[in-house]
Amino acid sequence: MPFSVCIVGGGLVGALEAIYMAKRGWDVHVYESRGDPRSEVVTEGRSINLAMSHRAITAMEKVGVSEEVMRWVVPMKGRMIHSLDGSTASQPYSIRGECINSVERKRLNEFLLAEAEKHPNVKVYFQHRLSEANLDSGHLVFEGPDKRTVDVNADLIVGADGVYSLVRSNVMKRVRMDFQQTYIDHGYVELHMEPSSDGNWQMDPNHLHIWPKHSYMMIALPNPDKTFTLTLFMPWDNFENLKTEEQVLDFFKREFPDVVPKVGAEQLVKTFFRNPKGSLVHIKCKPYNYKHRAVFIGDAAHAMVPFYGQGMNCGFEDCRVLHEILDKHFGIDSSGKPPSPDELANALSEYSKIRYPDVTTIVDLAMYNYGEMRHLVTDWRYFIRKKVEGWLHLLVPRTVIPLYSMVSFSSIPYSEVMQRWQNQTAWLERTAEVAILGTAVTALTVTLRILNTKVAVSKLLSLQ
Amino acid sequence: MPFSVCIVGGGLVGALEAIYMAKRGWDVHVYESRGDPRSEVVTEGRSINLAMSHRAITAMEKVGVSEEVMRWVVPMKGRMIHSLDGSTASQPYSIRGECINSVERKRLNEFLLAEAEKHPNVKVYFQHRLSEANLDSGHLVFEGPDKRTVDVNADLIVGADGVYSLVRSNVMKRVRMDFQQTYIDHGYVELHMEPSSDGNWQMDPNHLHIWPKHSYMMIALPNPDKTFTLTLFMPWDNFENLKTEEQVLDFFKREFPDVVPKVGAEQLVKTFFRNPKGSLVHIKCKPYNYKHRAVFIGDAAHAMVPFYGQGMNCGFEDCRVLHEILDKHFGIDSSGKPPSPDELANALSEYSKIRYPDVTTIVDLAMYNYGEMRHLVTDWRYFIRKKVEGWLHLLVPRTVIPLYSMVSFSSIPYSEVMQRWQNQTAWLERTAEVAILGTAVTALTVTLRILNTKVAVSKLLSLQ
Repeated sequence: MPFSVCIVGGGLVGALEAIYMAKRGWDVHVYESRGDPRSEVVTEGRSINLAMSHRAITAMEKVGVSEEVMRWVVPMKGRMIHSLDGSTASQPYSIRGECINSVERKRLNEFLLAEAEKHPNVKVYFQHRLSEANLDSGHLVFEGPDKRTVDVNADLIVGADGVYSLVRSNVMKRVRMDFQQTYIDHGYVELHMEPSSDGNWQMDPNHLHIWPKHSYMMIALPNPDKTFTLTLFMPWDNFENLKTEEQVLDFFKREFPDVVPKVGAEQLVKTFFRNPKGSLVHIKCKPYNYKHRAVFIGDAAHAMVPFYGQGMNCGFEDCRVLHEILDKHFGIDSSGKPPSPDELANALSEYSKIRYPDVTTIVDLAMYNYGEMRHLVTDWRYFIRKKVEGWLHLLVPRTVIPLYSMVSFSSIPYSEVMQRWQNQTAWLERTAEVAILGTAVTALTVTLRILNTKVAVSKLLSLQ
Repeated sequence: MPFSVCIVGGGLVGALEAIYMAKRGWDVHVYESRGDPRSEVVTEGRSINLAMSHRAITAMEKVGVSEEVMRWVVPMKGRMIHSLDGSTASQPYSIRGECINSVERKRLNEFLLAEAEKHPNVKVYFQHRLSEANLDSGHLVFEGPDKRTVDVNADLIVGADGVYSLVRSNVMKRVRMDFQQTYIDHGYVELHMEPSSDGNWQMDPNHLHIWPKHSYMMIALPNPDKTFTLTLFMPWDNFENLKTEEQVLDFFKREFPDVVPKVGAEQLVKTFFRNPKGSLVHIKCKPYNYKHRAVFIGDAAHAMVPFYGQGMNCGFEDCRVLHEILDKHFGIDSSGKPPSPDELANALSEYSKIRYPDVTTIVDLAMYNYGEMRHLVTDWRYFIRKKVEGWLHLLVPRTVIPLYSMVSFSSIPYSEVMQRWQNQTAWLERTAEVAILGTAVTALTVTLRILNTKVAVSKLLSLQ
């Protein structure tokens, strides 16, 4: 019997994980509760596009699927800050020109599923929902279409079943799991901006657009079809105050006057009410595995608020890190050789241990970045600091790397990112103090010299 | 149709809540998954006795059931600290002689169930486990003995179903619930000390006995039958190092030499291996209600580590606070009049809001007290501080109340306890600084005077 892996969830992370597992030569079965995205229409209102950066690309590269994807992304080289008067200001993400990339969730998911299915040892089943799981025996029951139940016996169960993960719930029943889920008081709604009448993007497509409003914000990401997806993030209370079409239109006209004509008043009001209002939750937990039998990755392990654009990046990185650890324990072996339960348990425990500090750090940073996006980007001190950090990064590229660059344009483990950021912030602050002190001393010295000179001159004059 | 309340869980809190609900004239149905404790033998190993203090007593008083209970408790007036050399030192809980009370869980549970069943409008069903819950319609399904299912329709569902509450899980599916569960790295095991050969307690029964070991500890609570229940709390790693009977015995002989002869070497080793090892978890969440339909209380809402002896006290207080809020909204009315859904939803939301800061405070304090019990009680600074606080409490009883007294001997809301404690700690520290400074100045002045006198004297002498 070949070693069999059952992946619960065929979303982005589940599909990529299937490719990783397939390359080990193991038998891979992916069970997804929703229908095949390739035969379904896009559902508006649920993070249509995502920001893909270094970590996701690296994870895809490792299994040779990044090239194709990079052909249909829209690179965004910076933030475009929209002011109330309609003026805009570009803030590049990187002084070296590095970009993050807007990518369509549906297209990426379809592509990764197709790539997975190219492997003869991968099978994907849609509309199959996990209904029972016995993690000790590895026996799972799925409910398929027409309520038909399917029995599955797996050597290893991978939970890639998202924020409300059933695999995680099952692990939680068996281990002493630390678990924390926190909702923020803000919700979101997605809106849509069509191309202009001449068929082009209505705003600069190579930016992530932000309308910072301190206590809330709207953002927009470009799509390859020349449309933009707008997302309004706002306290639930504010949503509740927008009950009538008139209130919504007034609100947009007052707060986003440049957006209303671009979306169209009627369209805007219609989609605002039609599209679902999403809630924002973050989840931290540990461990991520149950013995040799189960491990969960992606949102199941670390749902985060979307403000650093790292949800998918971190989920894809989970796959890379997990398989690097498996490689370390079993060697890079595509023969399908089954690992011993003990070896596998050790590897999965190591994964839980190694991944926890990184994953919790990005969950926290994602929350931190909400403040930065809706508020800090309008602060001149923040702006100066960013500039100084950027220049220093050019001067001493290994010593000072801006936080955003470490998160989005490197594979430095998130926990190390945090450590370095704290160190360089302390260093920058000390340097700034020294600089200010130095400037003050110099100014004083110069003033005194001038005064002395004056005194000397007047003495000279008086001598005359 | 009378207003019907379904209480899930007939443990301590569920049974008391049934009495509270019965007094409103509502129809009360209690479903408990375990068997009737009155027809079962006591199961050793799961918190046989508990420390009952002011809050639990007050909550029972409100429904007239405290008097009987107080007859069979064993009062404990302080901690008895056991040193390695076998010497003991008593640390009273209160300078006013207030006590906490050791009470048997099983007896208390049986009594409260019997009291609840005295009300004609209360029915208790044992061996009925919640299997389905539709909180919107109020329809519940229980699985009874022989896998028979029972359908229940309730106007209000009260979850008193403990740390792994199913009512809470169901509420969590419907509201944006913040939820946090954290296991500590320590586990526990219960041991048993028989009466002496002359039929008496082998240690002072009016103390809670502690063997503080800095990184772990053992405690003992007296039972009315002249036995003691000992609980060893220890890091899991330490448990894992005790694999053989010899290792266990060596460990006890080395660390608890006074305990070994009292328990008996053979008995000690046997129970150590036979009794289950319990884990310690704390849970914080909010809200505690789902609209007008469900509310959960006790461990379901706030499991805590047992180190402040407040788990049951806080759970009973939940009942008191909940019903004070219901009284406020509907008046004190025993006619069974059904409340309107809106009114009830408002009252339950208010309960969630009011109770959250108190409950999370005691969850944190319980964790803090572990450090105090296993370590601080051996610190002379801690000891002096306690003494000073005690004296000040006698002098200015309203201004300074020791933390332990506020928690255990008052009904001051826990969050206010924390606030007052922080304020009085700051005040005590300032006062101590002033006192030390004052003493230093006085000492200096006196020294200088003496020196002056000496100088004057020597001058006088030299004049002669």
